[in-house]
Amino acid sequence: MPQPESSSQEQAQPEADPQTQFQPRPTYTEVQDLHAHAGNEVTVAGWVETVRIHGKVAFIVLRDGTGLVQCVLVRKALGDEDWETGTGELPQESTVEITGEVKLDDRAPGGAELVVSGLRLLSKAEEFPIQPKEHGIEFLMDNRHLWLRSSMQRAGLKVRAEVMQAVHDFFYDRGFTRIDTPILTGSIGESAGTLFSTDYFGEKAYLAQTGQLYVETACPAFRKVYCFGPTFRAEKSKTRRHLTEFWMVEPEVAFADSDENMRLQETFVTYLVERALERCSEELKVLERDTSKLEQVRGPFPRMSYTEAVEYLQSQGNDIAWGRDLGAADETILASRSDLPTLIYNYPKEAKAFYMKENPDDPRTVLCNDMLAPEGYGEIIGGSQREDDLDRLVTRIREEGLPEEVYSWYLDLRRYGSFVHSGFGLGIERTVAWITGRPHVREMIPYPRLMNRLNP
Amino acid sequence: MPQPESSSQEQAQPEADPQTQFQPRPTYTEVQDLHAHAGNEVTVAGWVETVRIHGKVAFIVLRDGTGLVQCVLVRKALGDEDWETGTGELPQESTVEITGEVKLDDRAPGGAELVVSGLRLLSKAEEFPIQPKEHGIEFLMDNRHLWLRSSMQRAGLKVRAEVMQAVHDFFYDRGFTRIDTPILTGSIGESAGTLFSTDYFGEKAYLAQTGQLYVETACPAFRKVYCFGPTFRAEKSKTRRHLTEFWMVEPEVAFADSDENMRLQETFVTYLVERALERCSEELKVLERDTSKLEQVRGPFPRMSYTEAVEYLQSQGNDIAWGRDLGAADETILASRSDLPTLIYNYPKEAKAFYMKENPDDPRTVLCNDMLAPEGYGEIIGGSQREDDLDRLVTRIREEGLPEEVYSWYLDLRRYGSFVHSGFGLGIERTVAWITGRPHVREMIPYPRLMNRLNP
Repeated sequence: MPQPESSSQEQAQPEADPQTQFQPRPTYTEVQDLHAHAGNEVTVAGWVETVRIHGKVAFIVLRDGTGLVQCVLVRKALGDEDWETGTGELPQESTVEITGEVKLDDRAPGGAELVVSGLRLLSKAEEFPIQPKEHGIEFLMDNRHLWLRSSMQRAGLKVRAEVMQAVHDFFYDRGFTRIDTPILTGSIGESAGTLFSTDYFGEKAYLAQTGQLYVETACPAFRKVYCFGPTFRAEKSKTRRHLTEFWMVEPEVAFADSDENMRLQETFVTYLVERALERCSEELKVLERDTSKLEQVRGPFPRMSYTEAVEYLQSQGNDIAWGRDLGAADETILASRSDLPTLIYNYPKEAKAFYMKENPDDPRTVLCNDMLAPEGYGEIIGGSQREDDLDRLVTRIREEGLPEEVYSWYLDLRRYGSFVHSGFGLGIERTVAWITGRPHVREMIPYPRLMNRLNP
Repeated sequence: MPQPESSSQEQAQPEADPQTQFQPRPTYTEVQDLHAHAGNEVTVAGWVETVRIHGKVAFIVLRDGTGLVQCVLVRKALGDEDWETGTGELPQESTVEITGEVKLDDRAPGGAELVVSGLRLLSKAEEFPIQPKEHGIEFLMDNRHLWLRSSMQRAGLKVRAEVMQAVHDFFYDRGFTRIDTPILTGSIGESAGTLFSTDYFGEKAYLAQTGQLYVETACPAFRKVYCFGPTFRAEKSKTRRHLTEFWMVEPEVAFADSDENMRLQETFVTYLVERALERCSEELKVLERDTSKLEQVRGPFPRMSYTEAVEYLQSQGNDIAWGRDLGAADETILASRSDLPTLIYNYPKEAKAFYMKENPDDPRTVLCNDMLAPEGYGEIIGGSQREDDLDRLVTRIREEGLPEEVYSWYLDLRRYGSFVHSGFGLGIERTVAWITGRPHVREMIPYPRLMNRLNP
């Protein structure tokens, strides 16, 4: 059997091969809990971020996944063997186990440091590809599995995780029932051109780009429902706002009209921002996010009809004609008028999807809205009241040239007790990009999928 | 434009077309909150489940998605027009708005009924396909979007939603970081034969059947992580335990060995069962679940090594040879020895995936375990300590004939600070089938995907 190179095998270890340590291991204290152990001896384990040696004193910054701690090595107190281990060749990202006394120190990151009494190398790392210097984005993305360990990426993904839990908590606490809608579907959601497809035992299946049509059907069972999962768009877009695979949360509420829908959006987005501010202050600091603008985010948000938006854009010298959808540049102009998110409502029918309800006060438009994030982050929500009139919905499906038979189950919702209902979809990565102040959605998901990126 | 048939248009309505009601609608009280409005007049809206007429008194059972309420119509008090609306042709699943006084009554479902003072038909339903009689499963699945409204399906999916929230709460409360792993992947997880694939801008992408390999890479960043999303298996299985698309939660813990991994599983499953018992007692009643066995579910669970399991099966007359994986029938025999879930650990290497860690005490086996649910529900968890030795992992990849270059990023985890780590995957639908006592996983997900089912 050929043996691949492995630098972890090359160096004589002070103890038996750490890769095969099967003796009972000590219970490791997590770095985030160190302050509770002041004055006591604990053992931690993690990865070496940096080693600095000043004569007979050395400092190892250890990351254990819950925090960073500075470990102080004093040669005389530690003894030669452990001193050699800690100050000899100990490459960045090597795994070590360190025993020491917890000393509280306000100047230390996390408020505590360890005065080391014992040190064991668990696994010596090869030279880490990502160094504290500028790397190109393609290099970093090729090494995404390692880039995850860096402080900015950790902070961004921690905010993402918090926002995702906040999404679930928001809806759970308000009596919504989570409905997981299918990814594999025989039906086509919006437009077939931007769908991934797969062979499904001889049939053609599409990867869902929305769960909305499905989640609507659960309203008569549970009244307030939501789905939250990955969605897919085979769009040939190379912008900082597009992913081919992204997570979207889509609530749907029976007996809610477009106005209630917008109020729910305001409450929801206010909640997400508050949660992030409240529980991710350290991460936002690492990301150097100016939180003063986020702190103002509280509903109600400024609202503007599509028609007003077009008039405003025209007044600014933009040659947009009524009826055309707003582009990203238009959205940036409109959103920049406020530090709050902006709601643009009641777009022209032609610019929007077939399932949106015709506006009785102006049938050229539909009862819908987008929410534009401030600071140039673009559309984070699209929502609408749904067309609940069977005849009008069928007419719209035919106008769009969509295959009517594919939507028969969706039409059934208007045959068996139709009802006013509304919902929206919020894209997680764009929302987290805005909250963290990061320029590109690709860093807001652990393994981004872009037009030219499927690996790792 | 051709007009499709629509029975909702055929009957003269007592008021303007309810499909186009844009006047401000009343704020509807939710049925689940009625007890807080005893003696007061409220307005509710929902779907008609049944209408019973006894001379000059009639009863409408209304479902509003938050509960059922019996509405009492007295002809004399109500007036002729509303009486006609309520007792004339009012097909099941029609949408109505009902105003009335809340009367507490312990005999009523939900503890309250409505003495109706006003009634408005919002949308008259066509004849509902699903009637209170036996329907074939294919018919019900063809009408899954309507079947969702039935009491058993509502109850089952409510338990699912509770369990899913419990999953998130369990890990969030314990400091795990949620990591969303990609669905679209250029890498192959376990075996290529059971993967769905799609064209990805000219490349071939596979739908992930596990997030594990990706979630492992986040351990050095966050220590304790989990992913929770849909996973895909293109298996030609037609059993009551298989779906082609199902949800799986996969935690991964740095510095945890196989034994800690099993303890985490026990704590986790105990928690999920407790949450369901605590917060879904009504639903479990509807499902006629005998909860006495669930109430006993508390870790530690019985454990048996694979070798012991084989010896036991052989003692029962089974001709299983050591080295063969356990089949569903074997699992049922083993699990039936206890009312608790059973852990079977340390399977033969050949029966398990390449990434499981070799058992130093018996290198024919790997440090892994399955958890078998009691009452014949089969495997709900598969878990293992991961191979953290680079050389052994490479050897295993070659032995399995897997493409080594595809796993280079996974191998990197052993090059840059390798560490003991373990994790597991729990299948949601099987777990919910067990908790609800339902025989088939297909009812445990809103829109099941089976070998022969991609619609609706």
